[in-house]
Amino acid sequence: MAASPSPAGETGTCIMAWADTLAAHTEQPGMLTRTYLTEAHHGAAAQLARWMEEAGMQVRRDAAGNVIGRYEGLEPGAPALLTGSHFDTVRDAGRYDGNLGVLLPIACVGAWHRQGKRFPFAVEVVGFAEEEGVRFKATLLGSRAIAGTFDSKVLDNLDDEGRSMRDVMRAAGFEPDRLPAAAHPRAQVLGFIEVHIEQGPVLLNEGLPLGVVTAISGASRFLVDLEGLAGHAGTVPMDMRRDAAMAAAEIGLYIERRCGGTPGLVGTVGQFNVPNGATNVVPGRAQFSIDIRAGDDAVRQAAVADVLAEIERVCARRQVRAQVRKTHEAASVPCAPWLQQQWADAIARQGLPVRHLPSGAGHDAMAIAAIADVAMLFVRCGNGGISHHPTETMSADDAELAARVFSDFVEHFARPH
Amino acid sequence: MAASPSPAGETGTCIMAWADTLAAHTEQPGMLTRTYLTEAHHGAAAQLARWMEEAGMQVRRDAAGNVIGRYEGLEPGAPALLTGSHFDTVRDAGRYDGNLGVLLPIACVGAWHRQGKRFPFAVEVVGFAEEEGVRFKATLLGSRAIAGTFDSKVLDNLDDEGRSMRDVMRAAGFEPDRLPAAAHPRAQVLGFIEVHIEQGPVLLNEGLPLGVVTAISGASRFLVDLEGLAGHAGTVPMDMRRDAAMAAAEIGLYIERRCGGTPGLVGTVGQFNVPNGATNVVPGRAQFSIDIRAGDDAVRQAAVADVLAEIERVCARRQVRAQVRKTHEAASVPCAPWLQQQWADAIARQGLPVRHLPSGAGHDAMAIAAIADVAMLFVRCGNGGISHHPTETMSADDAELAARVFSDFVEHFARPH
Repeated sequence: MAASPSPAGETGTCIMAWADTLAAHTEQPGMLTRTYLTEAHHGAAAQLARWMEEAGMQVRRDAAGNVIGRYEGLEPGAPALLTGSHFDTVRDAGRYDGNLGVLLPIACVGAWHRQGKRFPFAVEVVGFAEEEGVRFKATLLGSRAIAGTFDSKVLDNLDDEGRSMRDVMRAAGFEPDRLPAAAHPRAQVLGFIEVHIEQGPVLLNEGLPLGVVTAISGASRFLVDLEGLAGHAGTVPMDMRRDAAMAAAEIGLYIERRCGGTPGLVGTVGQFNVPNGATNVVPGRAQFSIDIRAGDDAVRQAAVADVLAEIERVCARRQVRAQVRKTHEAASVPCAPWLQQQWADAIARQGLPVRHLPSGAGHDAMAIAAIADVAMLFVRCGNGGISHHPTETMSADDAELAARVFSDFVEHFARPH
Repeated sequence: MAASPSPAGETGTCIMAWADTLAAHTEQPGMLTRTYLTEAHHGAAAQLARWMEEAGMQVRRDAAGNVIGRYEGLEPGAPALLTGSHFDTVRDAGRYDGNLGVLLPIACVGAWHRQGKRFPFAVEVVGFAEEEGVRFKATLLGSRAIAGTFDSKVLDNLDDEGRSMRDVMRAAGFEPDRLPAAAHPRAQVLGFIEVHIEQGPVLLNEGLPLGVVTAISGASRFLVDLEGLAGHAGTVPMDMRRDAAMAAAEIGLYIERRCGGTPGLVGTVGQFNVPNGATNVVPGRAQFSIDIRAGDDAVRQAAVADVLAEIERVCARRQVRAQVRKTHEAASVPCAPWLQQQWADAIARQGLPVRHLPSGAGHDAMAIAAIADVAMLFVRCGNGGISHHPTETMSADDAELAARVFSDFVEHFARPH
């Protein structure tokens, strides 16, 4: 059952080369940073549009700046199978996160175009202009525009230089008032499939190149502020302390224990800080964040309830006051079983084992789920599964396999009964 | 055996009023901050000198800026019983830390002076110019000058405005080259006794106004830098993480457990920080400080060894790399048993229970121990034992009791056989 890795074919090699070329469009020399509607972002959009045209697609930009390539079906104007991902990046990013899901379908469409192959449906490849939320602290801008769920309030958000999103869009030639027209009619979308690197180590550790995503995990996030009593590190006996940092440490380890052992459930204390901490002062305050995710909402909610109860218990015992502020809550977005099945069939037809796994990270598919069934294909991430980092990597062999599975998926694509 | 608190007498009231008056000498309006050789510091020194003169003492300043009041004995030039504490403060300080140990003896000498009482020895009250180390990041400057252990290297230390200690001293009229002459000859010092607020909650919790210090705790300090592996909070399963913050949390709780339950031993993680921590990132790094103190050096060293071994165990299990840097190590300074006994006798003569306890904080007595036997009297700290904070407090009743015990101590003072 072990997959024998195929040597990187032409398509895999092409995708990797394109990713390198696209990475040159950056705001910061020496690293990859490409945020919404910067010069680097415009450059990348233009490059994607050229590749789409060369692959035989009609290219348009919508009011959000999305780059949309349409490969017509046998009959012009037919409903489309939508695919794509985002081409903005985090700061000091890797080159595959998002970009892979735009480049890979373009390469596949190019191959069909050269073979003169058409389907009973159109294929639209979308380079979503914004997903990461770096510049304007609002995420999924591109996919929300296409889903018709763009929240016009975020147009007032400011970037670090104090320019509003509205002004930046207008200056770039995109008219915020026309955003509603960017929404795709539900009847014109047969489904949405997104290819993405896993951004984690699961496939890598199991020696598998590809995986079928079951759901995009729901998430609950909190910021916790603990107030105990500062004291002199030398003079306050251990049993008279109200140490906020040790309360935080105990809660953090509880979160780790509670979320361990349940597949698909993760809990993270990503921020942990003693404000103005000094070596010789018992911490009177501690601040930390909590991020709990699971593919199954009930599993996540049970963990959250247990963690909140434990915060109360620990703080009562240690005479520490807790302020717990929920900063984010999102339900999980399940991937459509019928689309998952077609991914699984395509993988199996390549002689590869089929591995299902949830996605702990958010993706454009979450937003598109408002207008269509969605599903995702994960590609193995190298280097321990690191992402959002310049050492994020994947192999040309895996790009080749993913392209074959993607092509096979589309060629066999059938709407549900 | 319960002490019936005496109503604040004249001396106690005077000491509290002086502390208020002295607190007006501050660098920062609205709070008390008085660091070495600032204008506020000069003002406080001049005020102390005036009170000393009014109490019948001859006053001199030495090359370190210490304010020394000498109350001659029955024969001029006799060796002196030394007492005193520091009159510099931390930033946003309380008004009793240090200052109490200068003001209280001045008040007692004033009473003897009015009664025409003299002893077979001189009494010297020292207002140590610097103990806290705030301005030049070097502590105990005043007491080290008197002990002859002033390290001339620190003269090159710079304050926040980039001025060297040497330049600041010269500008203030104190000649660094004359620091060696500030050292007191061992034969001229019969002993050193220091009155100080406890800066902790032990006496307060036991309902006792005074305590005899057994030793000034030794201390070991470390800065620990942990490096695990950063990862996406949503995509890295719990059992594949190398979370530096959770390793730090586990070590912190071990320190708390290991140091709990052993009287006189304390362990503190005062700094705890995930550099550039983000809610959605598994911490790849964590930094924290360790401060372990005990009156008994062997007790401290055993705890330190256990903590260092636990760091290795936790980091090996979690695949986290630790860099442990020792930043400070000081042996404990025992208080001389014969002086402790005379404190205990004086306390008992006031009808008060005698409580012995170690001092977890450092004090001028540590430096003076180089030339004389030392001992300390602790005075109950109010408000939960808070110190180094504007809400640091003590009562006039306790000041009165401490003054009575101090006077009684000196009046009964006898050199060891």
